Amino acid sequence: MKYTEEYQIEFKDCDENRRLKLPALVDLMMQVSEHQLSQGGAGTDDLVKRGLGWVVTQYHFEISDLPKPGDQVILSTEASGYNRFFEYRDFGVSTADGKPLVTVKSQWVMLDLKKRHMVPADTKMMEDWGALLLKKMPRFPRLRARDNYEHIRPYRARYDDLDTNHHVTNSHYFSWFVDMLDRNFLKEHIVTAIDIKFDKEVHYGESINSCMDLVQDDIVTTYHVIEAEDGTVKAVCELSWRKI
Amino acid sequence: MKYTEEYQIEFKDCDENRRLKLPALVDLMMQVSEHQLSQGGAGTDDLVKRGLGWVVTQYHFEISDLPKPGDQVILSTEASGYNRFFEYRDFGVSTADGKPLVTVKSQWVMLDLKKRHMVPADTKMMEDWGALLLKKMPRFPRLRARDNYEHIRPYRARYDDLDTNHHVTNSHYFSWFVDMLDRNFLKEHIVTAIDIKFDKEVHYGESINSCMDLVQDDIVTTYHVIEAEDGTVKAVCELSWRKI
Repeated sequence: MKYTEEYQIEFKDCDENRRLKLPALVDLMMQVSEHQLSQGGAGTDDLVKRGLGWVVTQYHFEISDLPKPGDQVILSTEASGYNRFFEYRDFGVSTADGKPLVTVKSQWVMLDLKKRHMVPADTKMMEDWGALLLKKMPRFPRLRARDNYEHIRPYRARYDDLDTNHHVTNSHYFSWFVDMLDRNFLKEHIVTAIDIKFDKEVHYGESINSCMDLVQDDIVTTYHVIEAEDGTVKAVCELSWRKI
Repeated sequence: MKYTEEYQIEFKDCDENRRLKLPALVDLMMQVSEHQLSQGGAGTDDLVKRGLGWVVTQYHFEISDLPKPGDQVILSTEASGYNRFFEYRDFGVSTADGKPLVTVKSQWVMLDLKKRHMVPADTKMMEDWGALLLKKMPRFPRLRARDNYEHIRPYRARYDDLDTNHHVTNSHYFSWFVDMLDRNFLKEHIVTAIDIKFDKEVHYGESINSCMDLVQDDIVTTYHVIEAEDGTVKAVCELSWRKI
């Protein structure tokens, strides 16, 4: 079942170039799926009572354009399938007359919050959401950290980076990626695709390194990794860009 | 004229203790006043066309409680008066049945964006908003930086801290304040009052120091300053707390 909601893009959602910020985009995706799930008794609070929580493992974004302040958009989400351990969810942002701006595919696991390990998909919940049992694993790009990166900057996970699950919100990683790019580059380029894989949590107060390589072929691609100080990979990400 | 809007508090607006984050509170205040002003042809975009922009100089908050995810609240705002150079605006957050949670008084100046200096109040605009010409300056507490602070931490203004006016968003300062406090302190205390005075802008990429003293008298007060690396004061703030 596809769930949709209208939303007006606010100034606070946008960067200095009047484009929807990537962290705000991800926050809006989480917001619309929370609304769908909580209406069906499977929202964050319902799951916490059962000792469970969703954790995203990978996103794939395709972006034709990013909305600006005052734009009326339609946010959509749908549980698109599941198998034994993974759940798949699609998201969309389109203009008021239905032109797609952003489409997202994502892969999730359900976590036992106390034991911190994966639990198998809740078959009944998935069926309630109209999600189909998938015979084949949907394919996401295989992302690997590079051996080394040209640009590195340390960041520390701040109090406001935490969500109600006491984790650094996954939307926040995009601030660490985007902040690595030159301000002029961000003025002249718009993201067209994003692939990100989340490997390990970043904890409150932890210092991480945000690492980046910019590669200019036919298209401009930036390769990112978030690493712990000991080099442990926390997340790997690739962003494709087009010149405006 | 008082302007009101309903709003549902989202998970993304709240900290790990399920309380509305201070930066999100300020963002919502800006959102509701933007909606009022843009309906009257005096929104951010209308002013930019005239080369003008609002800059806040001081806020005074009184907070009886902070809403949590899913709460339906009423946001309100009103241009409460003006004199030659200053404009005054009130904000409120109340429960759906009208119980006040947060009330805010604020002082603003209008800036010529090119010349970067204050321009006198636009009398016609003020009258259109039903704001009265004030004979006496409303009093805000006089805030002064202390000679030295026990706790100091450096921060760097990131790309996502910028707003569409190319400035570090004023809501963001509250992240720099709150992050100075101990995580357990934040679990056990709630803000009851805030006074903040903005002196100088923080620029993109600039490194600042967030400085804090915690003083435990009858009530717990934290004293904050945001300073440039050369010691120039950017903003002074006092937060009062009560134990939960």
